[in-house]
Amino acid sequence: MYQPLFNHINRFVTLSEEEEKILASALQSFSVKKKAFLLAQGQTCKANYFVVKGCLRLYFIDVKGVAQTTQFAIENWWISDLTSFLFQKPSTFFIQAVETTEVIAIAHQDYEKLFEQLPKLEKYFRLIFQKLHQASQQRIMFLYSFSAEERYRHFNGLFPEFVQRIPQYMLASYLGFTPEFLSKIRAKR
Amino acid sequence: MYQPLFNHINRFVTLSEEEEKILASALQSFSVKKKAFLLAQGQTCKANYFVVKGCLRLYFIDVKGVAQTTQFAIENWWISDLTSFLFQKPSTFFIQAVETTEVIAIAHQDYEKLFEQLPKLEKYFRLIFQKLHQASQQRIMFLYSFSAEERYRHFNGLFPEFVQRIPQYMLASYLGFTPEFLSKIRAKR
Repeated sequence: MYQPLFNHINRFVTLSEEEEKILASALQSFSVKKKAFLLAQGQTCKANYFVVKGCLRLYFIDVKGVAQTTQFAIENWWISDLTSFLFQKPSTFFIQAVETTEVIAIAHQDYEKLFEQLPKLEKYFRLIFQKLHQASQQRIMFLYSFSAEERYRHFNGLFPEFVQRIPQYMLASYLGFTPEFLSKIRAKR
Repeated sequence: MYQPLFNHINRFVTLSEEEEKILASALQSFSVKKKAFLLAQGQTCKANYFVVKGCLRLYFIDVKGVAQTTQFAIENWWISDLTSFLFQKPSTFFIQAVETTEVIAIAHQDYEKLFEQLPKLEKYFRLIFQKLHQASQQRIMFLYSFSAEERYRHFNGLFPEFVQRIPQYMLASYLGFTPEFLSKIRAKR
């Protein structure tokens, strides 16, 4: 049930069978229907989520009332509103399933405890957060440093299958332009 | 010389004297003059930088030719362009000293090796990157979810001394508005 997560962790550190059992006791696995929410604004983010299959997105509603998507998580990525998750306070974000998604969750009450029981996870999550922060630095820079069309071409070049897979209005939100603008760019090709 | 960093690390994990010596052998300590650069666009980010005293900022030049500040690092914060640092490729960012700044650096060639020698650092940097990513998620949300005036009031409420300390055009850039707009808000008070 948790094998996809074990496989991902074992790319970076090696867990023994015993350690996998300890980890399993802190995990939950479930399915989220397309368009359903794991977190809504005002709720507290209960867990850090690992995507086994499917796609989740993190977004918030901006000052103009428009949804701004700041992160997607597909297979082998983690997602959460860290401020709400770490400090257990109400979130300003939504986490929604873009497709029906299989998820493995670590609940807040188990999170810090797990590092005491399994110090090997420190390395794994150091690498995960390092990657997340690196991706986040890049995204902000892209949003401001390239024209909308350049952003689309670049992202489409890097992740052509992903661009086909997600609804276009979500992609437009992630790349910082309107769905109408995206239609125009695509029509030009 | 490296005591401020040891003190910071020891808030989260406990290094022995022997471990501090191993760490010290991978560190460099130096001073950066106000307005000098640790990294410029096109260069490769050589190190991850810890601020002992002073202030650094990470920024890039946007599509309109305007400097966009995405991160400040004051005492006890780490800063780098992670993409350039981790993959040793040319950066699209600048790292500049806002004030004359004392820095401790871990060079790229020592970085991954250090985790093998001192596994305790995994926890420390897991917490550092967790914090950096959390702060980054919050900043993006604030930039889009609040009016310019609300952003200024909120930031000034959280970090009043910092707001006094840095040049106003850098603060304006970090909060996503023009220096002229910032003057207007301040004049209203």
